[in-house]
Amino acid sequence: MTFIQSLRQRWLEANTLLCVGLDPEPERLPAVLDDDADAVFTFCRAIVDATAPYVCAFKPQIAHFAALGGEDALQRLIAHIHHAHPGIPVILDAKRGDIGSTAQHYASEAFDRYRADAVTVNPYLGRDSVQPFLNRADKGVVVLCRTSNPGSGEFQDLRIDGKPLYQHVAQRVAHEWNGNGNCLLVIGATWPDELAQVRALVGDLPLLVPGVGAQGGDVAAVLSNGADSQGNGLVISSSRAILYASDGADYAGAAAAAALQQRDAINAQRPR
Amino acid sequence: MTFIQSLRQRWLEANTLLCVGLDPEPERLPAVLDDDADAVFTFCRAIVDATAPYVCAFKPQIAHFAALGGEDALQRLIAHIHHAHPGIPVILDAKRGDIGSTAQHYASEAFDRYRADAVTVNPYLGRDSVQPFLNRADKGVVVLCRTSNPGSGEFQDLRIDGKPLYQHVAQRVAHEWNGNGNCLLVIGATWPDELAQVRALVGDLPLLVPGVGAQGGDVAAVLSNGADSQGNGLVISSSRAILYASDGADYAGAAAAAALQQRDAINAQRPR
Repeated sequence: MTFIQSLRQRWLEANTLLCVGLDPEPERLPAVLDDDADAVFTFCRAIVDATAPYVCAFKPQIAHFAALGGEDALQRLIAHIHHAHPGIPVILDAKRGDIGSTAQHYASEAFDRYRADAVTVNPYLGRDSVQPFLNRADKGVVVLCRTSNPGSGEFQDLRIDGKPLYQHVAQRVAHEWNGNGNCLLVIGATWPDELAQVRALVGDLPLLVPGVGAQGGDVAAVLSNGADSQGNGLVISSSRAILYASDGADYAGAAAAAALQQRDAINAQRPR
Repeated sequence: MTFIQSLRQRWLEANTLLCVGLDPEPERLPAVLDDDADAVFTFCRAIVDATAPYVCAFKPQIAHFAALGGEDALQRLIAHIHHAHPGIPVILDAKRGDIGSTAQHYASEAFDRYRADAVTVNPYLGRDSVQPFLNRADKGVVVLCRTSNPGSGEFQDLRIDGKPLYQHVAQRVAHEWNGNGNCLLVIGATWPDELAQVRALVGDLPLLVPGVGAQGGDVAAVLSNGADSQGNGLVISSSRAILYASDGADYAGAAAAAALQQRDAINAQRPR
């Protein structure tokens, strides 16, 4: 199965649009893991196992591992997801962007070394920089479009021929880069109007929407503005609100409860 | 010394604008290293030691290490440069770009884990995404502007108020992001006209210019269009033409000869 097929299957069969972002912060790990030399892995594995029934995808963020020298933990974590939860795709959040042979190495890092099913990439260098990712037809290529941060408009909103840059990115990706049908776009939940604009431009292209939960994005607006024609089309990512739902020994159970609640809050707003 | 001070010192005291890019390709390593289990490190260290007299900086490209699981080799390589060649700054070519706490982790990866003196970053997400790097006043922040790849114009050339996007990036970085005086811009040697336009906009801001050598950028045009008011201001990066000058046992000597020749070819065109 391709990434997109796995994702659609989770939307329908597991009835969830929720993605759990795996962004481990060492100083926020529960105290019960203080003596665990492999705490980042133990923590993430417990979160994965507890929340798996409620997610359409997991999204580990690579910098949170790389800053600690935790490449091995990341590799084992993705292997664990594939082994213990087959059918749940893994999006490696790496926001890569480089040229020629270097882009090839980044694609190899994401797909061959880490065995991710999809990876986030930056569009600024143009299509040729993303081509080595696009060529992997079974993998997902998740292109930054309108990011969730407060300052995202500095360049993304600059107007070209009457339309902001992020809409030019959305159109190119949806209508020119997507020959293998493996593209997605990132639109922050913090920008519901922009989400509606992008949905109007890209048909049923799947959108990765971070920024609900700790960043304050509104679930109802995300669904009404971002869902595709089938009431799906969204990968709604939440990290901190689920990972750190409790700092006690019950952290995994608390994460499961938070994920279940998020999934249901999303489904309650899902157009049918 | 800050990154910018180290760079200026190399421009003046070592009389060189050349930067050697360390982009090891396993299949292009010389056959004499076939039995070396640590071949990537051995190769890069030999290149570094042979070319150090002729460079203003080294620029390891992280994907070439990450695709192989070679983080440890990269860490040892940068430590070797600092130890054996003090005063030569290291630019980690990583093209990072992410938001909030994740950007902080990427800054920590580059500066604390790898001990790089500067890092390349992507501007698409806006200033707040780069702020954790900008805050490290002693480190260099090298922002992508007009990249050397053939397709770089797809978004970078889109015109906003009569000026292409890359010029908006150049102006913001030079005049708004550079409060700590630690910014540089990346302009491909393959775009000499764009290099002149950027130099006219940014005063004496240092420019990292990849794309001479294998990518075909013209040294004379780079110098005449890109040098600052002192005849410096450029970090001219060459990788493959130096790394793979010979595939024999003499690879390090051949790299030194190629670097010396490049340095002199650059200096012959350097305005005085």
